[in-house]
Amino acid sequence: MERLVLHEYAASGNCYKVRLTAALLDLPLQRREYDILNGETRTPEFLAGVNANGRIPVLQAGDRFIPESNAACFYLADGSPLIPEDRFNRADMLRWMFWEQYNHEPNIATLRFWIAFVGEERLSDLQRAQLGPKRVAGEAALKLMDEHLTSRRFLVGDRLTLADIVLYAYTHVAEEGGFDLALFPAIGRWLERVAAEPGYLPMAA
Amino acid sequence: MERLVLHEYAASGNCYKVRLTAALLDLPLQRREYDILNGETRTPEFLAGVNANGRIPVLQAGDRFIPESNAACFYLADGSPLIPEDRFNRADMLRWMFWEQYNHEPNIATLRFWIAFVGEERLSDLQRAQLGPKRVAGEAALKLMDEHLTSRRFLVGDRLTLADIVLYAYTHVAEEGGFDLALFPAIGRWLERVAAEPGYLPMAA
Repeated sequence: MERLVLHEYAASGNCYKVRLTAALLDLPLQRREYDILNGETRTPEFLAGVNANGRIPVLQAGDRFIPESNAACFYLADGSPLIPEDRFNRADMLRWMFWEQYNHEPNIATLRFWIAFVGEERLSDLQRAQLGPKRVAGEAALKLMDEHLTSRRFLVGDRLTLADIVLYAYTHVAEEGGFDLALFPAIGRWLERVAAEPGYLPMAA
Repeated sequence: MERLVLHEYAASGNCYKVRLTAALLDLPLQRREYDILNGETRTPEFLAGVNANGRIPVLQAGDRFIPESNAACFYLADGSPLIPEDRFNRADMLRWMFWEQYNHEPNIATLRFWIAFVGEERLSDLQRAQLGPKRVAGEAALKLMDEHLTSRRFLVGDRLTLADIVLYAYTHVAEEGGFDLALFPAIGRWLERVAAEPGYLPMAA
C-alpha cells in the first residue's frame, strides 16, 4: 500500500480507531499530531490541504486524503478479514458503524470530551443543558450494545470486524465521561475479547 | 434478491434514501408505514422484532433486518455501479455517507423535522436553544457541499454513487427547515443532475 499518514489528535477515540485498525492489519502508519484545543485543524492550510471540514482524523494515502474515521478504517481494511465477505454481514457491520457515529459518539465521546478535556466549569450554557440528555442517550446506547453482546462474541457474525474496532474506541474509555461500565457485563467481556486480538494496540501506545 | 420490505415513515428523508436507491436499481420494495409521531416504532413488538433502537427506516431482507438508512442503501447497492469499484473512491463515498449522518442530518434534517413536522411552538426549551447552533452548522454543511460540487458533477468520481443519493434526500428539502438553497448554486445544479437519473423517484411517490 502507498505511504500512510494519520493526521490526528492522539487522545481522540476517532483517531485511535484508525491506529487500531492499522495495527491489527500490521500496516505501517506515520502520525502527525494537531492540537485541536488550540484550533490547529481550523487553519487555512489545514482546511485547504487536509480537510475542508476542519476535523481530524484524516487518513492520508499517498497524496490523497480520507476524512471521517470510519471511512478511513474501511479504506485500510478493504479486502481484509476485518470486513465480512457475506453481503448481509457487510451491511450489518456498516449498520453498527453508522449507529456509532449517530447514537454512540455524539453522546459518549462528547461527554468524555466535555468532562475530561474541556472541563465542566468551562462548558457553555447550551452544553451544560445537554449533559442530562446526552447521559440518558449514552446509557441507552450502551444498554443496546450490552443486550446485543449477551449472546454473541462480536457485534457481527462470529469474528472481529470493523464494527467492533470503531465501537471499542470510545466504549473502553466511557468511564472518563462518567459512564459506569460495571452496569454492562457483556460489554466488559467483549472489551477483553477485543483487547486479546493479535496485534492489538492500546490507546496510549 | 430475497423479498424486500421497507419499514418506514414516508416523510423521512432517511427512508426516502432507501426507496430512491431501490428505484435506481429497479428493485421491488414493499413498504410498511409507521406513525413515528405517535410512537409506533417504540412498541415492544417493534423493539423486539424489527429494531431494538426504536427507529426507522429498517430494511427487511427475507427474515433479516438492517437498521440505519445508509447501511440499508449499501446492502441494496452492493455489487452495483452505485458503489465505486476503485478502493479510494469506495472509501471516499463512505466518507460522505458518514459525514451525512454526523454533520448534515443532525442539523438539516432535525431543523426540518422540528419546524415542519413538530412545530416551533411545541419545541422544548433545549430544542429551542439548539435552533441557532443547528442553523449555523447546517449552513456550514451546505457550504462545504457547494464548494466541493463547484468543480464536480457528482460527489465522488464522475458518476452517481450512494454518496449522492444519501445526501440528496435531506438536501433537496432543506428549505422546509428554513435553509435558502439559492445561496448554493452548485448544489442546485447537482440536485437537477440527480433528479435526471434514469429510474429517479420523487420523495412523494
